[in-house]
Amino acid sequence: MLNAGSYYRKNGSCLFRVWAPFSKQMTLHLVFPDEREIEMIPKPEGYFIAEVEKLPASTLYFYNPDGEADYPDPASQFQPKGVHGPSKVVDHHTFAWTDHEWKGIPLQELVLYELHVGTFTPEGTFEAIIPRLETLKSLGVNALELLPVAQFPENRNWGYDAVYPYAVQDSYGGPEGLKKLVDAAHQANVAIFLDVVYNHLGPEGNYLGKFGPYFTDHYRTPWGDAINFDGDYSDPVRAYIADNILYWAHYFHVDGLRLDAIHEIYDRGAVSIWELIHKKLKANPPLTGNRFYLIAESDLNSPRVVQPPESGGHGLDAQWLDDFHHALYVLLDKKGRSRYADFGTTRHLQKAYEAGFVHSGEYVGFRRRRYGRSSAGVPGERFIVFNQNHDQVGNRVNGERLSVLVDFDHLKLAMGALLTAPYIPMLFMGEEYGEDVPFYYFVSHSDQDLINAVSEGRKSLLAAFSNEKEFPDPVDLETFRRSKIDWEKRRVGRHKVLWEWTERLLHLRRTHP
Amino acid sequence: MLNAGSYYRKNGSCLFRVWAPFSKQMTLHLVFPDEREIEMIPKPEGYFIAEVEKLPASTLYFYNPDGEADYPDPASQFQPKGVHGPSKVVDHHTFAWTDHEWKGIPLQELVLYELHVGTFTPEGTFEAIIPRLETLKSLGVNALELLPVAQFPENRNWGYDAVYPYAVQDSYGGPEGLKKLVDAAHQANVAIFLDVVYNHLGPEGNYLGKFGPYFTDHYRTPWGDAINFDGDYSDPVRAYIADNILYWAHYFHVDGLRLDAIHEIYDRGAVSIWELIHKKLKANPPLTGNRFYLIAESDLNSPRVVQPPESGGHGLDAQWLDDFHHALYVLLDKKGRSRYADFGTTRHLQKAYEAGFVHSGEYVGFRRRRYGRSSAGVPGERFIVFNQNHDQVGNRVNGERLSVLVDFDHLKLAMGALLTAPYIPMLFMGEEYGEDVPFYYFVSHSDQDLINAVSEGRKSLLAAFSNEKEFPDPVDLETFRRSKIDWEKRRVGRHKVLWEWTERLLHLRRTHP
Repeated sequence: MLNAGSYYRKNGSCLFRVWAPFSKQMTLHLVFPDEREIEMIPKPEGYFIAEVEKLPASTLYFYNPDGEADYPDPASQFQPKGVHGPSKVVDHHTFAWTDHEWKGIPLQELVLYELHVGTFTPEGTFEAIIPRLETLKSLGVNALELLPVAQFPENRNWGYDAVYPYAVQDSYGGPEGLKKLVDAAHQANVAIFLDVVYNHLGPEGNYLGKFGPYFTDHYRTPWGDAINFDGDYSDPVRAYIADNILYWAHYFHVDGLRLDAIHEIYDRGAVSIWELIHKKLKANPPLTGNRFYLIAESDLNSPRVVQPPESGGHGLDAQWLDDFHHALYVLLDKKGRSRYADFGTTRHLQKAYEAGFVHSGEYVGFRRRRYGRSSAGVPGERFIVFNQNHDQVGNRVNGERLSVLVDFDHLKLAMGALLTAPYIPMLFMGEEYGEDVPFYYFVSHSDQDLINAVSEGRKSLLAAFSNEKEFPDPVDLETFRRSKIDWEKRRVGRHKVLWEWTERLLHLRRTHP
Repeated sequence: MLNAGSYYRKNGSCLFRVWAPFSKQMTLHLVFPDEREIEMIPKPEGYFIAEVEKLPASTLYFYNPDGEADYPDPASQFQPKGVHGPSKVVDHHTFAWTDHEWKGIPLQELVLYELHVGTFTPEGTFEAIIPRLETLKSLGVNALELLPVAQFPENRNWGYDAVYPYAVQDSYGGPEGLKKLVDAAHQANVAIFLDVVYNHLGPEGNYLGKFGPYFTDHYRTPWGDAINFDGDYSDPVRAYIADNILYWAHYFHVDGLRLDAIHEIYDRGAVSIWELIHKKLKANPPLTGNRFYLIAESDLNSPRVVQPPESGGHGLDAQWLDDFHHALYVLLDKKGRSRYADFGTTRHLQKAYEAGFVHSGEYVGFRRRRYGRSSAGVPGERFIVFNQNHDQVGNRVNGERLSVLVDFDHLKLAMGALLTAPYIPMLFMGEEYGEDVPFYYFVSHSDQDLINAVSEGRKSLLAAFSNEKEFPDPVDLETFRRSKIDWEKRRVGRHKVLWEWTERLLHLRRTHP
């Protein structure tokens, strides 16, 4: 089913497949438990394959193109020693799934809960989430949306610097940990969504350029060269991304994806990457028989994102509605207006409730151009709304959540406004009880130049929004530690009041849809 | 109606309007017949205006942003002293149009004739074309398509280095000359199409960057930065291009445009530049009441180009069908196969006749990827077909036309294949009588560095297709002179036979549509 990566069979054999169209030769270098070099066989379209019998399931390996050096597998499913280390073969047949009865959640009934695995629990792992599932379910949440879990450098990152789209972060518990979480979630009638990044890959540990033209300089994203969805040699790159969707659906029983910043995905070809993805999903539907949900983050205010392909749309199931947040937030917190200068009247909020996009073709000062298009008539379940998410909180200098920006009455009001909206609501971990610890931007890298660049880059980004001179250092371990939520707070004082308020509102939502 | 440029009124007053969002101040510098400096008035969106009473219609002027230097008007309608000289005010009320009865040609009846003004006649002017109109009409041609006539450097250029989209090339006869040609053509029941370039502007005489962000480095075209259709400050740039279409329709009575390489026009906004153009044309329909035709050159093999906006298409009237040429040509000239390696069987030609795009999603070696999408079911009048055009001829090292590549029988066969196709045919000037002079690539620049760069660039482009060591120098006047056709040949020998053959085929086409 997948075009690249390792495929470990029940009989103990393993097929390795890697794409390297400019390489004359490719060596599979097994490094553990046995060391062995295997010459791979060239195949059409620039792929190389090797079929290895009787391979231990715990095998670690590298690829070596043209005898140049050892590199991890671009389609690695596990990097147990981090982004620079060997890739590990994963046997997907051994996990004892128990979610055969899982029926999924209808789109319009979703209540999403965005969480960052590393800071949601003291342990920062998938497994540590499991004991909280029943509690979240009782609150009324029925879907967790995990910030990206693909392998990133070291062990602290929001996830957007991931460099192995198929590898599950080792420090979170790797592939096994994610499967345990998904299985337990399904037992608790909770769906799992992953945030995935198909617009770029991170800078550290990114060896894709050693293998092939995964990137193109034809388009410029905020993070450098775009992924090559439409240029020379783009077919295997398109398959690499489209297959990734099948991978999460089939190997991990994931229920849907949140597609990061799709406005930075460039594809002018006659058949768009979205059409390819729909085709692949149709040919390989999830085993549950459920629809596999694709939810976009889009900065275009274009209804095309959720319109069907027949009318020229991308055919995605839903998209984030940032305008709802902006329109509501500036009414709750006057200090926030400078950040969202094109919002500020109740009419904006009314439009967000009634029509979706607030900016639907008018001139927008922040954009310095006419922006957007009307989404009037687009069904409510096509939009995800939130009062805060990792971006809005984390991109404030001091990582302030809404709970520390507005008073308690406003906080309750905000929750009411969110949960009675005719859209799919999403909470940001801790929001349900008014968590007040910050959610900072944090990273860890092993490359000192990169560490310096990140610190400087962050300063200049934040300086655009603030006059403050002191910023928490993204690479400081404390910045990460201080971002961990304290889930026990939910039992006490105003936190408890807000929790119960949220619970009642979600109950109301279920009983009066 | 137009957002920028000079607007000369019947009462002798003139409105000047220029967009320069970063300039604090703008001076209108009148340089002839009177010298005068006029401080312009800042207006919203970064425009500056000046209203001047009793202005001589022959006035030459510059703009001077922030006292920096004199530059021509980016929306200049005439550059009588070339791309670096002053702009000239044009009085569009004085021309005595006589085409009130002109009804236009229905799309499906068009027979296009592509010509380069500079090499079609010994004079190389618009007016010199007029005496040939009746003869072309009697042949069966009913629409001339002029290679770009917007002002380019000096006096020799295919037209794709134009830098003033609104200015009519001085050496061709300027705005007055073009109007004379259009008016005479309409008297002869011949439509006029212009080739326009909205994907880039040429390098020499391009002062747009002195005024505003007309370009963006967000996308990379083969000619450098793309035109800014979707970034910050893009509204006035979008208007600058969209208004250009209205300008040709209203001020010059032009019947339609051929849009150069629209695959290099980038716009990810929620409302595409095509939608803006349709909206403007609907609000300002041509005076004739005819549909203003928009024909695209597109390298995407995507039926979306001609599909209606409701189904996500660009809504253009037709597009060039290069695949028809490639499929037919390689069957006629076996030596040509290396150039079009993905064509070569009669099945390809059959598909071109039956379905349009030959490459409709399969892997194409030249593209190194799957390419295109089926256009089966798209009506025939949505495609323009040709056996040669300026590109195919001019991009051969020695500028060979089909007449010198294949023997006479094949040439007749090719004409038959073209003119019986279920598409709109286009002849390349001289093709109708088997002209055998070359059509070379030629330019003239005043900038010596640019001259050298063009010569070198051309060599490397051609080297990719040929082993020949000697190339005609694009900047040599002889290269241009030798590209002029000899229209008198049509009366003699085999040229006459082919002319009559073409005439009979076009007659057959009219009588048996």
